[in-house]
Amino acid sequence: MTVAASRGTANGASESGAPFRFTVHEKAGRARTGTFTTPHGPVETPAFMAVGTQATVKALDPDDLRTIGAQMILANTYHLHLRPGEDVIRSLGGLHRFMGWNGPILTDSGGFQVFSLSSLRTVDEDGVEFRSHLDGSTHVFTPESVMRIERDLGADVIMQFDHVIPGQSEMAASRDASERSIRWLARCLDAHMTLETDGEMQALFPIVQGGVFPALRREAVAAITGMDDWPGYGIGGLSVGEPKPAMMEMLDVVDEALPTTRPRYLMGVGFPEDLVEGVRRGVDLFDCVAPTRMGRNGAVFTSEGRLNVKRAEFRTDPRPLDESCGCVACTRFSRAYIRHLFVSDEILGLRLLSLHNVHFLVALMARARAEIRAGTFDGWSRDWLARHHSRPTPIETT
Amino acid sequence: MTVAASRGTANGASESGAPFRFTVHEKAGRARTGTFTTPHGPVETPAFMAVGTQATVKALDPDDLRTIGAQMILANTYHLHLRPGEDVIRSLGGLHRFMGWNGPILTDSGGFQVFSLSSLRTVDEDGVEFRSHLDGSTHVFTPESVMRIERDLGADVIMQFDHVIPGQSEMAASRDASERSIRWLARCLDAHMTLETDGEMQALFPIVQGGVFPALRREAVAAITGMDDWPGYGIGGLSVGEPKPAMMEMLDVVDEALPTTRPRYLMGVGFPEDLVEGVRRGVDLFDCVAPTRMGRNGAVFTSEGRLNVKRAEFRTDPRPLDESCGCVACTRFSRAYIRHLFVSDEILGLRLLSLHNVHFLVALMARARAEIRAGTFDGWSRDWLARHHSRPTPIETT
Repeated sequence: MTVAASRGTANGASESGAPFRFTVHEKAGRARTGTFTTPHGPVETPAFMAVGTQATVKALDPDDLRTIGAQMILANTYHLHLRPGEDVIRSLGGLHRFMGWNGPILTDSGGFQVFSLSSLRTVDEDGVEFRSHLDGSTHVFTPESVMRIERDLGADVIMQFDHVIPGQSEMAASRDASERSIRWLARCLDAHMTLETDGEMQALFPIVQGGVFPALRREAVAAITGMDDWPGYGIGGLSVGEPKPAMMEMLDVVDEALPTTRPRYLMGVGFPEDLVEGVRRGVDLFDCVAPTRMGRNGAVFTSEGRLNVKRAEFRTDPRPLDESCGCVACTRFSRAYIRHLFVSDEILGLRLLSLHNVHFLVALMARARAEIRAGTFDGWSRDWLARHHSRPTPIETT
Repeated sequence: MTVAASRGTANGASESGAPFRFTVHEKAGRARTGTFTTPHGPVETPAFMAVGTQATVKALDPDDLRTIGAQMILANTYHLHLRPGEDVIRSLGGLHRFMGWNGPILTDSGGFQVFSLSSLRTVDEDGVEFRSHLDGSTHVFTPESVMRIERDLGADVIMQFDHVIPGQSEMAASRDASERSIRWLARCLDAHMTLETDGEMQALFPIVQGGVFPALRREAVAAITGMDDWPGYGIGGLSVGEPKPAMMEMLDVVDEALPTTRPRYLMGVGFPEDLVEGVRRGVDLFDCVAPTRMGRNGAVFTSEGRLNVKRAEFRTDPRPLDESCGCVACTRFSRAYIRHLFVSDEILGLRLLSLHNVHFLVALMARARAEIRAGTFDGWSRDWLARHHSRPTPIETT
């Protein structure tokens, strides 16, 4: 058994021997490449993390993820607490062994999920009582219980339990939720420091909230960074219904306020254009269910924009989904075949599009790293965004 | 373009340079090992063929099939005619290219499917008019149209169009259907000889019908073998509702009547114990949807018998599905994890059980070949059957 954390060591990732380190390599404006080291291997950043909500990235297996180039994946505390239960996963050796993925894993705290259950939960200072979406059973998440669950799950990075609010909330509600999230962070850290892990250390990431209000975002960063030297920072409460320009403005504010020496993880984002915009604003890590969820609906990310493979025009189309893509779906199968799989409700269709779409985002981040290294990122990313934005260009970075 | 067949050459596979050859290696009673050579590679027999009804073995991809050791797979003329249409598959280069499987493929003729649509079809000497189960549209299958469709699909082995009847049919109905199937076979052969293929030659297999009546089965074999020197023989109309001992008796009859120099394919069979019984009776090729269909329901073939992975007792079971199995599902994942995938409706669960179950049957046939080679097949197969039969032992071979 290893003590999970003591203030300034496990979460203070500054020492060279610490299990979690972040090294910045090249910079291009605010964009940067880096290496985030974890007990289950390094993550070259910027990086997209595929989401394995229920301890499986939907329709994919661990070999698919390795082949795609995925480095780090996500799992969800809320879902795994309900099913199969963290006790089951712990008894089977933790998430890595349970799901057969030996690379880095991050668990989100369930904050986003329980606050999405608006009619099924009550919140107070202690935590959130909610009803399971599966069977209506009652559960309580507190900062302490979530830290225990995330310890049992055994991911490399664990997110704090936070108070998530809708993206268009007013300032008072945003302030309340942000300040509560900060108080809950202190409780998470206390719990995390006393819990023993079964194996490797875990890194606790705080989550910067504050809605769409620059002052609240700055206050949140100040309070969080004043509490500890964290091994990384989550940026939460974005891409939850607020206007896209507001999200970009918040990224600018938070980027300026956060220490540059730690990875920044923009939670729940996103679409290809959001990733490129995020990298331009200093974001290092992203996650989103979009590539797998959209893939299961037949939507395909391509270098020429989005297409839906179910359309009749692809009935006899011998071309790959994306002619510039090197994934298995594109090198071995035609649009016509994949369309046939979709029209015929065949499982392989779901897998091939999920694989292609996750590969698209993983490869997009690899390309961004290469462009940063080569000193060509600014021009490349501007060109890329000009080609891909179908809506008015959001506020540009200066 | 290559002329698909001329009497006594394409279907007369006796010459050493013919694209379809069958070489018998070792024998053990009536069981034997052999090599069936096709334009897309050899098939070591006895072998189980996985079923890819809609040009995909459900939940699996071509790499999965290779990894499992699958040699030859099936696709269905009825389903592919309706969707996406043989014109689409032909325009994309045929089934092998369409589905990314470069190994041998066999197409069944649709006879089994159209006769299963009992309320939706009418039969006469010319053929069968039926309504699509998808949209109710009207189609006609005749021996000639089916040969053209199978030519367009481009499989290595194509089955004749036959008249399939329920397994418990009386003698008069069985005789009618068998004799019609033989008349249709002559028309299939005529059509096959005049159709040009786009690529490699195709082998037309006749289907021995005759219900559960030894005399009809013998008459069918005599008529069929009198018509041509076929490259292989289908044994149809079994495992369609008749008592299991009747099926074994028919296999004994047909085995004795068929030439020993050609592969025998027992259509639509089956379960592990049926395969072992079939090999003991001289069968070389099998196919069945059971491993994938059962897998999608959570049922698992194991060396200790069948289990259902959804059962609560497996909630924390760290063991593989089958401790003596070397497939990916068994070497990398626990029963507890796969149960979790099933309970959570995750696609990976469907894939892992399909993969395991197909592997089980493919590996069972590889084991049978090894036992035949080693001269130990009789004892091994008797022991195996004694362990696996939960019902009274069917009529044993002498």
